[in-house]
Amino acid sequence: MKIKKLSKLAVLSITMLAVLGSNSVKAKDISVKEIGSYFVGGEEVSLNGLPITEVVYTKGGKPEKSDPNGQFEVGQMYVQFVKLSNPKAKYPLMMWHGGGFTGTGYESTPDGRPGWQSYFLKAGHNVYISDAVERGRASWAKYPEINQGPPLFRTKEHAWTQFRIGKIYNGTDKNKSTIYEDQKFPAQSFDNMVKSGVPRWITSDKWTQKAYNDYVAGFNEGVVIIAHSQAGNFAVNAALANPGKVKALILIEPSGAPDPDKFNIAGLKDIPHLYIWGDYLDKPEVAGWAKYSHEVSVPKYSNAIKNIGGDVTWIDLPQVGIKGNSHMIFMDKNSDDIANIINKWMKAKGFVK
Amino acid sequence: MKIKKLSKLAVLSITMLAVLGSNSVKAKDISVKEIGSYFVGGEEVSLNGLPITEVVYTKGGKPEKSDPNGQFEVGQMYVQFVKLSNPKAKYPLMMWHGGGFTGTGYESTPDGRPGWQSYFLKAGHNVYISDAVERGRASWAKYPEINQGPPLFRTKEHAWTQFRIGKIYNGTDKNKSTIYEDQKFPAQSFDNMVKSGVPRWITSDKWTQKAYNDYVAGFNEGVVIIAHSQAGNFAVNAALANPGKVKALILIEPSGAPDPDKFNIAGLKDIPHLYIWGDYLDKPEVAGWAKYSHEVSVPKYSNAIKNIGGDVTWIDLPQVGIKGNSHMIFMDKNSDDIANIINKWMKAKGFVK
Repeated sequence: MKIKKLSKLAVLSITMLAVLGSNSVKAKDISVKEIGSYFVGGEEVSLNGLPITEVVYTKGGKPEKSDPNGQFEVGQMYVQFVKLSNPKAKYPLMMWHGGGFTGTGYESTPDGRPGWQSYFLKAGHNVYISDAVERGRASWAKYPEINQGPPLFRTKEHAWTQFRIGKIYNGTDKNKSTIYEDQKFPAQSFDNMVKSGVPRWITSDKWTQKAYNDYVAGFNEGVVIIAHSQAGNFAVNAALANPGKVKALILIEPSGAPDPDKFNIAGLKDIPHLYIWGDYLDKPEVAGWAKYSHEVSVPKYSNAIKNIGGDVTWIDLPQVGIKGNSHMIFMDKNSDDIANIINKWMKAKGFVK
Repeated sequence: MKIKKLSKLAVLSITMLAVLGSNSVKAKDISVKEIGSYFVGGEEVSLNGLPITEVVYTKGGKPEKSDPNGQFEVGQMYVQFVKLSNPKAKYPLMMWHGGGFTGTGYESTPDGRPGWQSYFLKAGHNVYISDAVERGRASWAKYPEINQGPPLFRTKEHAWTQFRIGKIYNGTDKNKSTIYEDQKFPAQSFDNMVKSGVPRWITSDKWTQKAYNDYVAGFNEGVVIIAHSQAGNFAVNAALANPGKVKALILIEPSGAPDPDKFNIAGLKDIPHLYIWGDYLDKPEVAGWAKYSHEVSVPKYSNAIKNIGGDVTWIDLPQVGIKGNSHMIFMDKNSDDIANIINKWMKAKGFVK
């Protein structure tokens, strides 16, 4: 058992050295054919019997009656795309954000470096970034009348410790907050990461999943999905709901996976899976959900995929010599190195020319 | 008086014919140097004494304690930019959305045509699109603990009538909704416009204005601002707060303006102002706020600017032969024609090579 593990690691290390040794995508300008956005999903709901109020919408404007009763669109998601003049990738590359966030984390890093959107555009992918239902530009449904809610707001302490920046967040004296050794998250820009957070709703997963399914269904040519944290689960389910359409699943620290005892995963056999996990998962103080995902729920699923003959690459970054990654791998200082690993994997699978 | 008005109109008509006669920006690919986003403003606030709950964040995940007490970042805004390899415009072009919306309306139209973002990128402008405080990707502060709220949700009926698509919205039988003659809004895609809406907060204008001011302050080279509806007021105030930085104000149906009797507008004299107003403002059923802005509050301000020697261009589109524009001019079927008028105006003012 120990020998087998070492052998697997050795192979991975060699692969990684080869990957990191070859040149990453060079900085260059991007020739864009089309840039835009659209909404997917959503349904009409009506409210009535609520009291009418009076409101001045703009300072200096005239007071207007505000009637909250009527029809609304709820449950839609937002999609933003950049299509290249000459894409090198076979399939559009979707980037799905984690819980309590929107797609902005892929645009730029908290310390102002170009994000994975730029990296993968320069690498020749048409990039689609979305805001899930009730997050960011997807808007949210009136609570508690339509969405049962409540919205959950992440504290700075929660973000600091749960995303594995350090063991202790000291809100009174920030200098007394601790940072893990070798930390790659740009901790001096922590506030910018917090600003990119949005409330999450734990009562609207059904809407979210439906919109993600419809989103993928819109691509007859197929798609590749990068999914972070909470979105890992949505991505696997969207693949189950859209046979043949999801060509690869790139799962960045997914916070869960469908239970293979409860789902028929046969349809997922031909989808190559790439898992990437950061550092510090062995720290005793690390959040239960992270350990549970990394050690229990996700391996149960990924092993089931392997057992039916599926193609699974599982990378624990510290085990291949890359130390210091937080949960927010695409924001970390080595974000381009990790993007490079992903791009090389896609090349190896034949998804990029 | 009547003669003077006709004469002004005649001049405008001739200008407009010249403008529309010359070629608009041709469809072509865009060479992009940099694409990304960032957050502006925001402050830390703390909450305590709220009850702790237990939550399962991801299906199949482990239950976690959810503690709503702690520190948060609130009052930030979101900015997304596309910088060109070879911009032709002298200044970055900001696009500020109206109340109850985010920046998405500038990305694509509800019927899927390229939006003003694409038009002005192709015309050689570096384009900055933002989501104001508490809208879209800017996130929103916990209500009622931090933001006094409440959030206001726009009904479909409100959007249909207030944005001047037609006189009657019939929610029960949509076919019985009426559409104004010559309507340029793509009414068949009305639901997509509604989906792009977000709750608005009428208690956070101070935060919003502060973030807009900080946003403009970040550009030492100066900026040109396109502001729609509610943002008109914010844009003029941001110009007042940033002497010399706002090089032009392009106000699309602004819903208000600072009262020149209460503000010292001297610092705004050298900023060329362009106003654009759509059709149907003379319909008896049109919302009070629209008439009040068009006839009272905004003219009071723009006349004051003219009286101190300022440069104001005021275009009522129907008066220059362009019929059928709704309040959502940048979404209307002739959105590129209106963008062309704006771009030609910027060229005439020396802002575009």
